[in-house]
Amino acid sequence: MSGVKGVTVAGFESIADALEALGDADPTYSAHVCAVHEGETVVDLVVGDDLAADSLISVFSCSKGIAALSLSLLLGSGDLDPDAPVARYWPEFAAAGKEAVTVRTALSHQAGLIGVAGGFTIEDVVEHHDLAARLAAASPLWVPGAAHGYHGVTIGTIMAELVARITGTSLQTFFRTNVIDAIGADFHFGVPEADQARIVEALPPKADEEQPEEPEPMSLVELAFGGGLMPPMRELVRHPLVVANGPVGFGGFGNARSMAHLYAQGLGDGLFPVGALRRMSQIQANGTDLVLGIETRFGLVFQVPDARLDYGSPWAFGHDGAGGAIGFADPARDLAFGYTTSRVPTPAGAHQPGLELARKVRACLRSALSPMENR
Amino acid sequence: MSGVKGVTVAGFESIADALEALGDADPTYSAHVCAVHEGETVVDLVVGDDLAADSLISVFSCSKGIAALSLSLLLGSGDLDPDAPVARYWPEFAAAGKEAVTVRTALSHQAGLIGVAGGFTIEDVVEHHDLAARLAAASPLWVPGAAHGYHGVTIGTIMAELVARITGTSLQTFFRTNVIDAIGADFHFGVPEADQARIVEALPPKADEEQPEEPEPMSLVELAFGGGLMPPMRELVRHPLVVANGPVGFGGFGNARSMAHLYAQGLGDGLFPVGALRRMSQIQANGTDLVLGIETRFGLVFQVPDARLDYGSPWAFGHDGAGGAIGFADPARDLAFGYTTSRVPTPAGAHQPGLELARKVRACLRSALSPMENR
Amino acid sequence: MSGVKGVTVAGFESIADALEALGDADPTYSAHVCAVHEGETVVDLVVGDDLAADSLISVFSCSKGIAALSLSLLLGSGDLDPDAPVARYWPEFAAAGKEAVTVRTALSHQAGLIGVAGGFTIEDVVEHHDLAARLAAASPLWVPGAAHGYHGVTIGTIMAELVARITGTSLQTFFRTNVIDAIGADFHFGVPEADQARIVEALPPKADEEQPEEPEPMSLVELAFGGGLMPPMRELVRHPLVVANGPVGFGGFGNARSMAHLYAQGLGDGLFPVGALRRMSQIQANGTDLVLGIETRFGLVFQVPDARLDYGSPWAFGHDGAGGAIGFADPARDLAFGYTTSRVPTPAGAHQPGLELARKVRACLRSALSPMENR
Repeated sequence: MSGVKGVTVAGFESIADALEALGDADPTYSAHVCAVHEGETVVDLVVGDDLAADSLISVFSCSKGIAALSLSLLLGSGDLDPDAPVARYWPEFAAAGKEAVTVRTALSHQAGLIGVAGGFTIEDVVEHHDLAARLAAASPLWVPGAAHGYHGVTIGTIMAELVARITGTSLQTFFRTNVIDAIGADFHFGVPEADQARIVEALPPKADEEQPEEPEPMSLVELAFGGGLMPPMRELVRHPLVVANGPVGFGGFGNARSMAHLYAQGLGDGLFPVGALRRMSQIQANGTDLVLGIETRFGLVFQVPDARLDYGSPWAFGHDGAGGAIGFADPARDLAFGYTTSRVPTPAGAHQPGLELARKVRACLRSALSPMENR
Repeated sequence: MSGVKGVTVAGFESIADALEALGDADPTYSAHVCAVHEGETVVDLVVGDDLAADSLISVFSCSKGIAALSLSLLLGSGDLDPDAPVARYWPEFAAAGKEAVTVRTALSHQAGLIGVAGGFTIEDVVEHHDLAARLAAASPLWVPGAAHGYHGVTIGTIMAELVARITGTSLQTFFRTNVIDAIGADFHFGVPEADQARIVEALPPKADEEQPEEPEPMSLVELAFGGGLMPPMRELVRHPLVVANGPVGFGGFGNARSMAHLYAQGLGDGLFPVGALRRMSQIQANGTDLVLGIETRFGLVFQVPDARLDYGSPWAFGHDGAGGAIGFADPARDLAFGYTTSRVPTPAGAHQPGLELARKVRACLRSALSPMENR
Repeated sequence: MSGVKGVTVAGFESIADALEALGDADPTYSAHVCAVHEGETVVDLVVGDDLAADSLISVFSCSKGIAALSLSLLLGSGDLDPDAPVARYWPEFAAAGKEAVTVRTALSHQAGLIGVAGGFTIEDVVEHHDLAARLAAASPLWVPGAAHGYHGVTIGTIMAELVARITGTSLQTFFRTNVIDAIGADFHFGVPEADQARIVEALPPKADEEQPEEPEPMSLVELAFGGGLMPPMRELVRHPLVVANGPVGFGGFGNARSMAHLYAQGLGDGLFPVGALRRMSQIQANGTDLVLGIETRFGLVFQVPDARLDYGSPWAFGHDGAGGAIGFADPARDLAFGYTTSRVPTPAGAHQPGLELARKVRACLRSALSPMENR
């Protein structure tokens, strides 16, 4: 018996059963799953020995989605216009033929600025200003808008610089002031010292699983993750610079509950403006990703549902992370969902059991509602 | 002996043989195939017990191609400019950021308006005006032009509203006045009562064939076909509202002969302007279809040849239908082709035997001509 | 023992070993491989009986890359602006709705001008002017920019006409004056009679290999290669009109050494302007190629690395040829590479052993450098 702890409301008991079955099948499995429907927490469950309901864990690229929620505030206020050139806010970005590259293009992984010649280190990412300047000066690897490829790290630098130019503060400070201080979410870009004791390390893939491939030297994917100069993922999950500073693209720490509650703030009368989120979650880029080599589908920063990441209806938006974590909102169902797990899956990215739990939550919603309400 | 009836001209006898072989192999098979070359009907054959040469049958999405032929009249006259914003003709369409969406984008399945929140019923489609208003008000599911996905139903609503705004009449009336009354085609958007006795019902897939999958709730494909509120296909093929009103996207009734003869009117000195059709049949959208999940290739409304739908030369254009029907023109060969069958194939869409018959017709053309004439 | 001849510098001996192993495994194999690193020829080796170090051989579409190097001179001087409409230089090109088609679109296989109705002959290609006029008048097969497909022959006609309009001379003359006369390369668009004795014929695929498929009549691929009117490849490799006139798209004769040395002139202080080449090698078109039916990736004329053509870093650019030849530069490594072989591979295009030798050269570079120098 794996000991599932937490709460479900009536109609969602099968999620606890599913989580228990996962724990029974694999004693090393730990996970936290949380779902919010129409403002009510319908599922908040933890299984396994490595996670507690108040654990903090590196959610890797789920950070992008949470940071994007905060960006929606600037779209909602009109301070950030997705159709404006990036250079309106960040004049140096106009270099190397990038005068006309829009915020929309830059935030949908279409700018061709996945890295910089010479690579970048974790110190470069955390220090931010020099890397931002190098990106602003860079010649895009592809003609902006002609293709898309996952800006795994640099989209965080781009988001952060836009926020800094518009608000005068770092994205980390902007997030703390406008999100954490406003609604009290347990999600951190830079974990306060008092909270660091709650950090749980993401564990490496199990020995009997396929290990992640090393990227080929000077490939697009190597370039996107630093050009060989960044620490490996197993170090990034607990790297003191990441914990203390929370680089935007991959350095957030939180849990399933805080992600679900943050996404729920984008579903109606919450903190985040629904109209802006709708604009950010229209499909902007779709097809073979030049960096990852798989099909990906993006709005502005957010992933939108595709065959791999079935977050639900065509209106859903969210982001997964290399450690297996998942966070998304589905406005058509008034549903927000968060999932964290302690062990890095292979291949990295949304953990299959987490996506399956999201499907089961949707099935519970269907059963709980009359057919007419399903529409 | 399956009893192939009808006519072929010299050099096309092998089409009758091929059709007879198909009927011999499957006694439940009925089909009508017609080909027009340089204005001459070279093949007009029927096989099987369920179809006659003057049967009318639901050709489903072949309707889109036939309706598009009539749209070519408006392009040819200059009343419809494919590069104009839709809102020039339909001002309400400018809502929700769609001011700049062009006719070209909207008619090539690139507008992201595959459905509406809340879904639509067959009554909505037939009544038309309210659904058109909801589409005009809608926020696109993807950034228009950033991707394409089959607007299985709503492209008919969009075509119909454009015709209504430009001509002041419904597309059904426009078609009857400008096409049927002009050249007498036996193709109907709304079958007159006197002709309804000739309607043959499309039969469901055979029990031993794979049944079509139910679309996943709230998937793009479900949304495109009504969001779960439309009747299943087996009811649509004989639904009184469809028979009587002929919704543009899927509600046409005709046969192989009338489709071939209509497409032949676009091959030279016929009713439909060749230059406009050429513009409508340039490839406009190509690649993975967000709705169907397969590769599709569109001009303006028309399908253009791809690996699945080999309608012939790169200048060919046409449309298939879920019931297996096929209609196309290939200007490089001065060839028009129509095919109907009584039984819905799986997967839905152009019936493989029909495509094979089209290939055989092309082979007959090659044999009948000297090598120099083949170029 | 297959008798590898030529030179390698210290650290690159394994390339000779690899070439010898290839020769030992297949006595009919002949190849020439040359690599230039930081201006130094580090590998220049020949194996087999059919090639010598000073042989000339048809490099087919590698010609496009070499011609594109010479085009970089016009970009560097500002005489050719990739963002200008083609019609600025070539007014007749504005016909049939092509007013706004840019040089960028036309040179990245996106213009939809892969052929002309009625096809073209080798005489048409060599005579040039009439074919250029027919292309200028043509209606694109797809909406320019909406897709891309290999303009296997006509991209040469387009390049040649641009050079003619801007400089007043043929591309062949422009190349001889500005490239051969300037740096002495043994690469010819039109082989001088005195050099024709050095021509080695590319051999047809071996009998036990899959023969290349005949393109389907009136398919996009047939149209791109003349619409059935061009001689087969085995005749083109020695066709007197090709040898004498060097049609731009496929008619260059050279060898591994001259290609490597030409590409090396684009890596720094050489003849070709680095900034212009960088602009020409940004990814401009990517995905399924409408003509070839495979994934291709292009900058302006140049192929850029993809899964099939791994020319190295994301900054690399080059071109392969149907006879198996390869030429590319990788600025991130200051490496230029050339490869020719005497026997046409199947499928046609970059010979796998040649790509493998390029990978081995990169591995030698890595071993020869300290880890820090690798970045």
